[in-house]
Amino acid sequence: MNVAGRARQLAREVGDRCDAVMISKPANLRWLTGFTGSNGSGALVGDELIVVTDGRYRIQIEHQLSEAGVTAQVLIGRKLDDLLLSELDKRLGSSPRLGVESHHITWDRQRSLLGQLEQRWGSAAELEALGPVIDDLRQIKDDGEVDRLRRAAEIADGALAEVMTELTELGPGSYSERRLARRLESAMLDRGADDASFPTIVASGPNSALPHARPGARTIDRGDLLIIDVGARVDGYGSDMTRTFAIGGFTSETEELYRAVESAQAAGLAAVKHDVEAVAVDQACRRVLAEHDLVEAFVHGTGHGIGLEIHEHPFLSRISDAMIRSGQAITIEPGVYIPGLGGVRIEDSVIVTESGHIPLTLSPKDPVVAA
Amino acid sequence: MNVAGRARQLAREVGDRCDAVMISKPANLRWLTGFTGSNGSGALVGDELIVVTDGRYRIQIEHQLSEAGVTAQVLIGRKLDDLLLSELDKRLGSSPRLGVESHHITWDRQRSLLGQLEQRWGSAAELEALGPVIDDLRQIKDDGEVDRLRRAAEIADGALAEVMTELTELGPGSYSERRLARRLESAMLDRGADDASFPTIVASGPNSALPHARPGARTIDRGDLLIIDVGARVDGYGSDMTRTFAIGGFTSETEELYRAVESAQAAGLAAVKHDVEAVAVDQACRRVLAEHDLVEAFVHGTGHGIGLEIHEHPFLSRISDAMIRSGQAITIEPGVYIPGLGGVRIEDSVIVTESGHIPLTLSPKDPVVAA
Repeated sequence: MNVAGRARQLAREVGDRCDAVMISKPANLRWLTGFTGSNGSGALVGDELIVVTDGRYRIQIEHQLSEAGVTAQVLIGRKLDDLLLSELDKRLGSSPRLGVESHHITWDRQRSLLGQLEQRWGSAAELEALGPVIDDLRQIKDDGEVDRLRRAAEIADGALAEVMTELTELGPGSYSERRLARRLESAMLDRGADDASFPTIVASGPNSALPHARPGARTIDRGDLLIIDVGARVDGYGSDMTRTFAIGGFTSETEELYRAVESAQAAGLAAVKHDVEAVAVDQACRRVLAEHDLVEAFVHGTGHGIGLEIHEHPFLSRISDAMIRSGQAITIEPGVYIPGLGGVRIEDSVIVTESGHIPLTLSPKDPVVAA
Repeated sequence: MNVAGRARQLAREVGDRCDAVMISKPANLRWLTGFTGSNGSGALVGDELIVVTDGRYRIQIEHQLSEAGVTAQVLIGRKLDDLLLSELDKRLGSSPRLGVESHHITWDRQRSLLGQLEQRWGSAAELEALGPVIDDLRQIKDDGEVDRLRRAAEIADGALAEVMTELTELGPGSYSERRLARRLESAMLDRGADDASFPTIVASGPNSALPHARPGARTIDRGDLLIIDVGARVDGYGSDMTRTFAIGGFTSETEELYRAVESAQAAGLAAVKHDVEAVAVDQACRRVLAEHDLVEAFVHGTGHGIGLEIHEHPFLSRISDAMIRSGQAITIEPGVYIPGLGGVRIEDSVIVTESGHIPLTLSPKDPVVAA
């Protein structure tokens, strides 16, 4: 994937707020340069990129920058911030303003950077808190990114279908949560995923009432609600999807829960289009659940962006100030959790368009598993 | 595992540097309270704990605190920092000093906290940068922690033996790096691991020369050096071990490489005991590699602590200022990486004692795989 144009995009966005931008967050450095090493940072001065990393990545970084069509000065060493500032020292004037990712660097690192800045340039040098400016740019996906997200979603769709067919054939009692999660991850790798995009969630029976349950030893059984939250990663980009199943069919109580969440999710999806407020999409889900007296049981946000991170901008919740924009990749995932009864969550990943959305995850919403 | 005594340990350590300590780093909150949720923070006032999290964890947190023998005030809400400060407002005097994990909170969060502090208490309130004070306490493992690390190491030992037997029987060409990594992770889960403690590294042939290679599609073949870096996680605690194999035997060049690293690792292990400097252990490895003219190819540190994080205090490197102390769990893992020839890394996890160490990882160092 050629990412050469992104540095100019960042330069335009930052404008004259600072003389150089330091890039510290790994997903942002990857987005700008293609470099995936676990230790590295970068700087943008004008439209020139500098990337620093340690000796372990000497070969990898040259390869990855060239694959991404990116021209950058590469510096290898141990004290990365020091290395980067030495290079900036050669390029910047007497009272530089260095923009930093203030939502990512720690307070300790900020204090250390400021100390080094003042040592080199005196007290006229400034650190400028830029916050998630690159995270915001990353919201809008280009064709290469959509292609990877689509492949990731397709892989998770295929894996889920395969594994649910198995579960139906083998019947209740055949799988523990943990084994089913592992089986799904294995099926995704077989279908070409690089990885799961997050640890697969399989929550059955009482565990389905825990919104962030981790798969455990519990055997999936007749009468269970079964929540499966799964995604694949392809070339860095991760999909995200949740389906809920009723093993052996619903009771009237669990069916009511399911239908309420199903309607809420449909309402959320229907609210998605360019230029609406994220909070309005959240409200669309919440309104339906309120009609079913279930809004108190919806204890998380409605969705989030997906991409190089599994939770990224924009965030869709009651307290969001984000806008939904054409080209974003987002999830819509209302859920309700009732201790003693169980939980239901339904989630799709979609690409936002001018007039609505294009679904990425296409698994059917067929909750009843014969048993 | 009962962790009730740890809050007092922290209170003693912090002394009168501040009136309350905010705990923001998840591994540190878990160590202090047993709570494992992905969203939460805590505060210690005197020797009383407060923990805040969101509605998803309402059931889980009560269960986990009680399992850990911890008494804490639990607050559930959405704006966690705000919730925590309201509670502190009731308990602290007029110009409180709040200690924070300055190596963990972001600069943005520090600015937001300071703003909220000044709003509540006026400009006399202070944020105190405590840095990794809890990470430092976590270095010394208690019996429950050693037990979990030992089980994790044993699981990885068993999985590696099982998978290497398979590889030997099936012969070169039978496994891609990625399949071997997945096979190892599967074997660890079968043996009772909750998870791999980090993404398993399998690097073969030319990829072994990349210190942080990720497993790819390459098939493991005769003549390869094969680096396997693997660990299991048991109840939060992760082991870490690396072995290097010569598929079908060494050449004289690769054998020289292997023997140098083997000697360096033995020298590093021999240097480990209570009250030596971490930098001296690093030097012990580096000195042996220098004798073989390979010190330039050792491009990373000698080791790190293991526990609730896979890389934690103390860090053993050329620039470390840490001390080795009885009760620490650390790795010793020199490695050399020669483009065009390949790489060798050998790593064990050990518990430091007064006079030396007790090994946790026990896999034999039998590098030659018949083929």
